Amino acid sequence: MNFKDQPIISMRNFSREMIDHILTAAEKMEPIARGEERSDLLSGKILAVLFFEPSTRTRMSFETAMLRLGGDVLNLGSVDASSIAKGETLADTIRVVDGYVDAIVLRHPKEGAAHLASEFSRVPVLNAGDGAGHHPTQTLLDLYTIKRESHLEDLKIALAGDLKYGRTVHSLCYALSLYGAQITLISPKELRMPEEIINDIIARGAKIKEVDTIEEAIRDVDVLYMTRIQKERFPDPAEYRKVANRLKITAETLKEAKKELKIMHPLPRVNEIDNKVDDTPHACYFKQAFYGVPVRMALLGLVLGAIE
Amino acid sequence: MNFKDQPIISMRNFSREMIDHILTAAEKMEPIARGEERSDLLSGKILAVLFFEPSTRTRMSFETAMLRLGGDVLNLGSVDASSIAKGETLADTIRVVDGYVDAIVLRHPKEGAAHLASEFSRVPVLNAGDGAGHHPTQTLLDLYTIKRESHLEDLKIALAGDLKYGRTVHSLCYALSLYGAQITLISPKELRMPEEIINDIIARGAKIKEVDTIEEAIRDVDVLYMTRIQKERFPDPAEYRKVANRLKITAETLKEAKKELKIMHPLPRVNEIDNKVDDTPHACYFKQAFYGVPVRMALLGLVLGAIE
Amino acid sequence: MNFKDQPIISMRNFSREMIDHILTAAEKMEPIARGEERSDLLSGKILAVLFFEPSTRTRMSFETAMLRLGGDVLNLGSVDASSIAKGETLADTIRVVDGYVDAIVLRHPKEGAAHLASEFSRVPVLNAGDGAGHHPTQTLLDLYTIKRESHLEDLKIALAGDLKYGRTVHSLCYALSLYGAQITLISPKELRMPEEIINDIIARGAKIKEVDTIEEAIRDVDVLYMTRIQKERFPDPAEYRKVANRLKITAETLKEAKKELKIMHPLPRVNEIDNKVDDTPHACYFKQAFYGVPVRMALLGLVLGAIE
Repeated sequence: MNFKDQPIISMRNFSREMIDHILTAAEKMEPIARGEERSDLLSGKILAVLFFEPSTRTRMSFETAMLRLGGDVLNLGSVDASSIAKGETLADTIRVVDGYVDAIVLRHPKEGAAHLASEFSRVPVLNAGDGAGHHPTQTLLDLYTIKRESHLEDLKIALAGDLKYGRTVHSLCYALSLYGAQITLISPKELRMPEEIINDIIARGAKIKEVDTIEEAIRDVDVLYMTRIQKERFPDPAEYRKVANRLKITAETLKEAKKELKIMHPLPRVNEIDNKVDDTPHACYFKQAFYGVPVRMALLGLVLGAIE
Repeated sequence: MNFKDQPIISMRNFSREMIDHILTAAEKMEPIARGEERSDLLSGKILAVLFFEPSTRTRMSFETAMLRLGGDVLNLGSVDASSIAKGETLADTIRVVDGYVDAIVLRHPKEGAAHLASEFSRVPVLNAGDGAGHHPTQTLLDLYTIKRESHLEDLKIALAGDLKYGRTVHSLCYALSLYGAQITLISPKELRMPEEIINDIIARGAKIKEVDTIEEAIRDVDVLYMTRIQKERFPDPAEYRKVANRLKITAETLKEAKKELKIMHPLPRVNEIDNKVDDTPHACYFKQAFYGVPVRMALLGLVLGAIE
Repeated sequence: MNFKDQPIISMRNFSREMIDHILTAAEKMEPIARGEERSDLLSGKILAVLFFEPSTRTRMSFETAMLRLGGDVLNLGSVDASSIAKGETLADTIRVVDGYVDAIVLRHPKEGAAHLASEFSRVPVLNAGDGAGHHPTQTLLDLYTIKRESHLEDLKIALAGDLKYGRTVHSLCYALSLYGAQITLISPKELRMPEEIINDIIARGAKIKEVDTIEEAIRDVDVLYMTRIQKERFPDPAEYRKVANRLKITAETLKEAKKELKIMHPLPRVNEIDNKVDDTPHACYFKQAFYGVPVRMALLGLVLGAIE
């Protein structure tokens, strides 16, 4: 398996073997990510961080990954402070920046931007989210979290919240289908997962169940994956509040849960998870944010050819 | 004395011994701060710089301190480009970021923010100013400047400007009281130092005198500490101009001064100090800005356990 | 020739010997700029990047240059997030920042800003563009590109676009006059190069010709240097479109060109050069952007005294 010089654009064509390869590499990175061990693996390498829309968590986690491996970071900065304001195309920006650096991580509001960038770039491009498109490193860190804190084999997972527009959960479901997961979907009817995605996932090997409330699913699952519901999805604020209130998790909700249940959330949360949950052994979302570091270290090491 | 893993939130509970310990450590850092010596003391360590309001000088000086010791810096960037715009709490931001880094320096508009952050963070938090609250590294660099350019023992110091709202001068007076300083306060009556602070400082060992003009104090003092008066404090612009004009220092004002008088200012200045003063041996404010570097190097070295 | 501690403000007083010295140094930097060789030449040194107006390309290329040589970068950040918003003068900013770093690169909207900064700074200042003033590193990278991709001796070059306000082309012409270049100027009559500059350049040794269209010049020249025409220069949008359309280069235009013709552009381009030209061997503008890195590495190495 050779990731050297390969762009990381989408999870769709990743095989289970490829995913397992990355997760194993990430595991070896963990002591370095924790600052317990030092590394100069990417010393002398520069990563360009091109974020055409803000995403603090993803950006900081990529930068940390690069720094922990001894590499350097070159930041595009805020977009209106850049040539883009002068009307430059993404293709031109990429063909300039690829002369400065060894790899590019790109966040862009437009679907397909990362793929386009990778066509023009002489250095590997890592997609850090392209609008309604893909966000493969989020999916990989979700998988890594499940592997480390629960288990990918025979997994029972529930996903709650906005399953219609939530790029994160779609991508995660596709990946989990490779492991034959039992997936329970919990969402208000306005935000159900699209039928064609459900069918796809089933065809790939997952078992799918749909329920209306967290309570119906909580006893059974190993992992509960919460997501934010965006107010803007609802024309009526009262309707939003009703839905948001129903898909909220509190210490009370957890009484029926398995002892080993892990709660995940891509963050930032608004009020989907009550603060009181933070101190329970179920809370796993801050660890999940941290796991973004070893996963991104592994990807950077792989595409830059520093590890195999 | 052990600062390892300790947050640096406020000067209030710092003993004279603790201050002396930090200042001595800063002195050893000076050749590295000047770029005359190299250091890898914090190599492999990452400092997160979370500035929720701008403060170029403080931020750049912290970043320099980290870089001069071989460490790396991870910047939150501008706040509206961050998750905070999505409504994330400070506690959540801290619990994510502390997974990426070895220490956090925080600037925040709300009093108490640094203390709150330190309660949630697994890594040491350094307060770089929290609204009307504290700004301990400014006080430490002020003390260091006095030690290096004048003397902390038997000090006669005058503080001029806004002594009512000026967090910087309050904190400095508290610290100087530990050294039994003779402090002369010079301010318009609208901006006098609050009575309870004066009483506190006297109780702790300082001698306090209040006068109306710089001229009344200038002959006697070793250090004159100038501060900015903010226009917004005055309902009447004419009143502001009168006051600002009176508490301004020129080459003329300095004729009566001791030869050894040092003039300090936390910067940026507006017009409290005439440019002509810059070329006199009294001017000490640019050195003072530089001294922020060795002081912050010492603090970073101490809380990260790289020095004792 | 000694560049150590010298500011780099303007090309006007650079002799041919000085330019050749820098270009030779840049050539030695190229393998490091490409990431093929490692260097610690500026390890332990810090470069302050003070950009008072945005310029992504120039800033990123300077930062890359510093990082590729093992140095560190300290960024002022966006200007409204800085003390400047509090009314600080440039002289004060410089006298603070020069205490933090080993060199300063400055971009400023006001002509003369870089010279002023260099008067106050204790560390060398590199001008990265000061309004209508100078931008010496752009000129040096243009010269380097010509040297590497074509030849500086017996050069036939055409410059097309806005030759009236275009600081870049004025500065390049001054420098090329030292090499006795034959320069063809192509511009709409509203944007002709000022008479006094033409006279100056001729006096310094260049041969000048003016024509109306690219077609009249294309057969003869070794290098065609395109520039952007700014809409704002024209009161009438229709007039702008007419002019912009005429000074546009397409694959068609190139049919008559020499096989060795190289096309340069300081970028970003808007539509002066058709995308189809990118794939021809004439296209040289992305290489030109890359060449900014070795040239800036050479300058940083020289002014910091790391190379001679």
